[in-house]
Amino acid sequence: MIRVGIVGVSGYTGVELARILSMCPGVEITVATSRQYDGRPLAEAFPSLRGKVDILCEDVQDAKLAERADVFFTAVPHQAAMGIVPQLLKAGKKVIDLSADFRLHDVDIYEAWYKPHTAPEYLSEAVYGLPEIHRQQIKAARLVANPGCYPTSVILGLAPLLKEKAINPLNLIVDSKSGVSGAGRTAKTNSLFCEVAEGFTAYMVGEHRHTPEMEQEIGKLYGEPVTISFTPHLVPMSRGILSTMYARLKKPLSAEDIRELYCNFYQDDFFVRLCEPGTYPATQFVRGSNFCDIGFKLDNRTGRVIILAAIDNLVKGAAGQAVQNLNIMYGFPETQGIETIPLFP
Amino acid sequence: MIRVGIVGVSGYTGVELARILSMCPGVEITVATSRQYDGRPLAEAFPSLRGKVDILCEDVQDAKLAERADVFFTAVPHQAAMGIVPQLLKAGKKVIDLSADFRLHDVDIYEAWYKPHTAPEYLSEAVYGLPEIHRQQIKAARLVANPGCYPTSVILGLAPLLKEKAINPLNLIVDSKSGVSGAGRTAKTNSLFCEVAEGFTAYMVGEHRHTPEMEQEIGKLYGEPVTISFTPHLVPMSRGILSTMYARLKKPLSAEDIRELYCNFYQDDFFVRLCEPGTYPATQFVRGSNFCDIGFKLDNRTGRVIILAAIDNLVKGAAGQAVQNLNIMYGFPETQGIETIPLFP
Amino acid sequence: MIRVGIVGVSGYTGVELARILSMCPGVEITVATSRQYDGRPLAEAFPSLRGKVDILCEDVQDAKLAERADVFFTAVPHQAAMGIVPQLLKAGKKVIDLSADFRLHDVDIYEAWYKPHTAPEYLSEAVYGLPEIHRQQIKAARLVANPGCYPTSVILGLAPLLKEKAINPLNLIVDSKSGVSGAGRTAKTNSLFCEVAEGFTAYMVGEHRHTPEMEQEIGKLYGEPVTISFTPHLVPMSRGILSTMYARLKKPLSAEDIRELYCNFYQDDFFVRLCEPGTYPATQFVRGSNFCDIGFKLDNRTGRVIILAAIDNLVKGAAGQAVQNLNIMYGFPETQGIETIPLFP
Amino acid sequence: MIRVGIVGVSGYTGVELARILSMCPGVEITVATSRQYDGRPLAEAFPSLRGKVDILCEDVQDAKLAERADVFFTAVPHQAAMGIVPQLLKAGKKVIDLSADFRLHDVDIYEAWYKPHTAPEYLSEAVYGLPEIHRQQIKAARLVANPGCYPTSVILGLAPLLKEKAINPLNLIVDSKSGVSGAGRTAKTNSLFCEVAEGFTAYMVGEHRHTPEMEQEIGKLYGEPVTISFTPHLVPMSRGILSTMYARLKKPLSAEDIRELYCNFYQDDFFVRLCEPGTYPATQFVRGSNFCDIGFKLDNRTGRVIILAAIDNLVKGAAGQAVQNLNIMYGFPETQGIETIPLFP
Repeated sequence: MIRVGIVGVSGYTGVELARILSMCPGVEITVATSRQYDGRPLAEAFPSLRGKVDILCEDVQDAKLAERADVFFTAVPHQAAMGIVPQLLKAGKKVIDLSADFRLHDVDIYEAWYKPHTAPEYLSEAVYGLPEIHRQQIKAARLVANPGCYPTSVILGLAPLLKEKAINPLNLIVDSKSGVSGAGRTAKTNSLFCEVAEGFTAYMVGEHRHTPEMEQEIGKLYGEPVTISFTPHLVPMSRGILSTMYARLKKPLSAEDIRELYCNFYQDDFFVRLCEPGTYPATQFVRGSNFCDIGFKLDNRTGRVIILAAIDNLVKGAAGQAVQNLNIMYGFPETQGIETIPLFP
Repeated sequence: MIRVGIVGVSGYTGVELARILSMCPGVEITVATSRQYDGRPLAEAFPSLRGKVDILCEDVQDAKLAERADVFFTAVPHQAAMGIVPQLLKAGKKVIDLSADFRLHDVDIYEAWYKPHTAPEYLSEAVYGLPEIHRQQIKAARLVANPGCYPTSVILGLAPLLKEKAINPLNLIVDSKSGVSGAGRTAKTNSLFCEVAEGFTAYMVGEHRHTPEMEQEIGKLYGEPVTISFTPHLVPMSRGILSTMYARLKKPLSAEDIRELYCNFYQDDFFVRLCEPGTYPATQFVRGSNFCDIGFKLDNRTGRVIILAAIDNLVKGAAGQAVQNLNIMYGFPETQGIETIPLFP
Repeated sequence: MIRVGIVGVSGYTGVELARILSMCPGVEITVATSRQYDGRPLAEAFPSLRGKVDILCEDVQDAKLAERADVFFTAVPHQAAMGIVPQLLKAGKKVIDLSADFRLHDVDIYEAWYKPHTAPEYLSEAVYGLPEIHRQQIKAARLVANPGCYPTSVILGLAPLLKEKAINPLNLIVDSKSGVSGAGRTAKTNSLFCEVAEGFTAYMVGEHRHTPEMEQEIGKLYGEPVTISFTPHLVPMSRGILSTMYARLKKPLSAEDIRELYCNFYQDDFFVRLCEPGTYPATQFVRGSNFCDIGFKLDNRTGRVIILAAIDNLVKGAAGQAVQNLNIMYGFPETQGIETIPLFP
Repeated sequence: MIRVGIVGVSGYTGVELARILSMCPGVEITVATSRQYDGRPLAEAFPSLRGKVDILCEDVQDAKLAERADVFFTAVPHQAAMGIVPQLLKAGKKVIDLSADFRLHDVDIYEAWYKPHTAPEYLSEAVYGLPEIHRQQIKAARLVANPGCYPTSVILGLAPLLKEKAINPLNLIVDSKSGVSGAGRTAKTNSLFCEVAEGFTAYMVGEHRHTPEMEQEIGKLYGEPVTISFTPHLVPMSRGILSTMYARLKKPLSAEDIRELYCNFYQDDFFVRLCEPGTYPATQFVRGSNFCDIGFKLDNRTGRVIILAAIDNLVKGAAGQAVQNLNIMYGFPETQGIETIPLFP
């Protein structure tokens, strides 16, 4: 029985980790931290968990924290993670960090998009935890940087074409749409029901911090540095991300060729599902699951291929993928505890 | 391995059965019928199931149908069920019927609220499949009439007070609110997104067909015939029912007394969760699960007790409860396959 | 041209006042206060207003405030209103107060449900601003207490039956459902999109502060003190209230009798619409308008009449009704500026 | 008083025309056709209209139809419009057609994207009814082809940059998102609440029929034929379109330059609102209004300008724009009857 700790259990990502890990055999949640709910059952804040999850929130820190588990999921905001993770690693623990702090290999890029980094010495060691791309490295990692929600959909959506150098990376446009849970559980006017319902808007156009993360991984797959245009939007729904990606083909591929490319690339990846020809992914068909659904349209009229990828931002885009990484790191079956069928309707 | 059949797999209840049964050990779906999707994979109509559920829809009927499984879930409209169920029973099969056709013991009441009944000889044999109330009879049943969604929430919400004769059944008011999936997957103007979203309304006021079903079970629990006022409403959400019930106390009970009454009554029932004092059930905290959450308020100012009960109408209100019945009928652990933690947010 | 002031313009009620008053002829908004947005255009906080409403938010107080307009709408929380209103009245201004501070005639009842009252000397003078019931007094008032959103729907729904003493007031059950804008624009976890969407729950069961307000007006209409059970619920939509009311008939009335009673009672009231027989009100059919739609069901089986009333909580339940009061106070056509047709879909 | 007819009044566009025209002075609706509701009041199908709109639906055709009004709004599906419009024109009436039948000047393009055209002789005469671009021609037109909802947002969003030849039209990507009312009021499974809510998906990727309409107008503005990539998506909301457009600059323009360009281009256009720098349009801020809100981001990192435009698809994207065209054709103030402030929240 592996002892796992969840640092920051009372946010949407934290509670999703609690929900999923409670369904995993071979794993026991031995500590879950939350300053806000210190001393109270997590099920008090989230009555959905009652009767199934009896975690007590605690405000444990530093050395005491490290003692309490073998592996930690850190689900705290960026900048906070870099203060906690090094201590856990030094205590010999493994860490799956769900913040942005260890995703970028280049500290200068991190600091250009975020703030100064106080633990840059771990950047080279951290493995970018997208199992479909970096499974081998994840196996051996002690620090996994769990990918951002948007990048997960985008990188999985583009990887086969990039690897094949089938598209021109200079013309990559990524137009993404996310449910509101991506904004977290903090009480902000912008996330109020009445501000969001029956509405649709863009935010951080060309400036979202997930951009360098996508560029890093897209660049690695393609073999050259890449700059993309990325626009995130807010959808009046709780869960789900759909990314629409526009690329120009460099090679004369038919729709069948492209389809085969994707099938081959993902042939051993349970969680990637290629849509039937003529159909496109929809977030409602991955809700609550760890699936990433991918579809595409070869538009001969414009010479473009349009790729669409859908995930549940809290599962494949966060907690589910983190558990997938855990499974890989500990040699469990990769799908253990995260095989849930999407909840539709 | 028990062979199960789903008759009417392409409605919301049918597909929910497929989803849940696919996660049940000891069970194999050997036939699933749908006229509309005959010959096509169920996952074509519901891409959420892709990669996990590879059921083929078939239009199988009569004798051929009975051969294909040991136990059948009939998820077809009322009036249709009474044409299918007798044949399955005659062929020696067990049936869990999710329609209204075998829920009422009294054929006259059925015919007053519905239409003429063509198989009334089975009414006395059918067991009303609410496990928390009729667990023993369900064990031995070959025909289980799975309760309606509204009645499930109402009967579970009132049972402890009724059994104790603690409330006056003459003053029972039931005000229920349901998500839109209760209206089924048929294309109707009334169920269109634009008609329902950002709106709230009542329907079938005082005339809903679930009324006699509630009155039958409430009357049995109380020991006398009971007449109730029942008003269903439509909530702009997909899943969930919340029922608010108003009753006058006949006995001088404190809030603690009532609490104890509920705790005792449901002490062996995993799926009933009593809310913490001062908190009330919410449909978002049972979504996707087989739980029924119950809370109450003793209002000394008015001498009334207000009871609130929340379920997921497609799970505890339909498919989940049907599987719970299956588990009881076959001696499986009662929670097998339906232990899912609610999906929140 | 009447100069009007809005005190507390940046909440949902305040901005709705700004929207509606901007469409009123004969009226000019000369001051609008907001601490939060002091010095900034209201359209910066609410871009919906751009190009049509060029109000500047100011933090004006005390004597300076009174000078700036002839009549004031105070749209601040209860307890805050009682600090502002007396000063405005003393300066010779008229006030339409949208808080709860001047709605209850009896200071003891106010203090039992709210907190100590610091200006009880104005309670006897304040007119309860429900035009369909108190039009004559409103004409002459200098202080109008604009009704609460729930009470507006409930009192209008029950008035004709109460006035006729046709129902037994001892058995009144009021089950109300409101959109989320009723909770205001304050950033609270409970009002976040993800907490509310796809969910339904009750709150303040038997304890909501609108209860004494309903009891006061219901009692006046019936001619005797009345105690009711009131349960508010939260609907995943922005605007709208539907109240479902259960009463026992004291007189043998037919559905036609009841219909006639309502038609007569509201024959001169443009904003009350009686639903066609067999149909019920729906919040989506009053959205954005000052209408109150009323329907009912005479249930001979139970001897009850179930009355349903729908309003837009921000319009007839707040800002629209306040403008209706202004029109009456100043001799404008009562419908001026608030004749908008509901926005559906 | 101008007599106006609405052909096809019972769809979402038709009823929106009824709602808006009822608020227009100088205009009287003298005939409104609907096969489905023949002989019944429109307010029976749409109770929102009760008390304000007393139109009777009729099934009037051919010569009889033409006699009944001076100007007609045809809100019927494409292919149906081309059968009705010629008769009305021959009878000397003016027509504002809300279908796609007369929007494309080139019959070959129409027939490539739609079906054979039976009245191509009117294509050269029809004026594309986007007032901000073709105001002068609309003044003199007897047949106005009211633009599609998506094209309205896209053309208005791009026009200033195209006219200035500031962007390279070869790299135009248009990613649009629409509320569900765009799919009409027909009962289809795809438009059911449960299929759409809490979900987001794309449809008709690279194949939507609004594409040639955009290309025609974009080409005219730029002065050369243009091919674009267009992907429409479905948002779980009733009203609203947001289009996100990606273009490469051909000229070295600063953000201030671009801003000035838009300000100048739209200086006489009441309905186009340019967002404040750093803010972006949101559909919730134009809901129920005829505004088109436009914002942009100059992304120096990628050399792209990203333009965002939001409209209410039923107002500026259909009925409101049609009334704007009517106002222009008849010399009314252009904003008459459509000055409504957006309804937020």
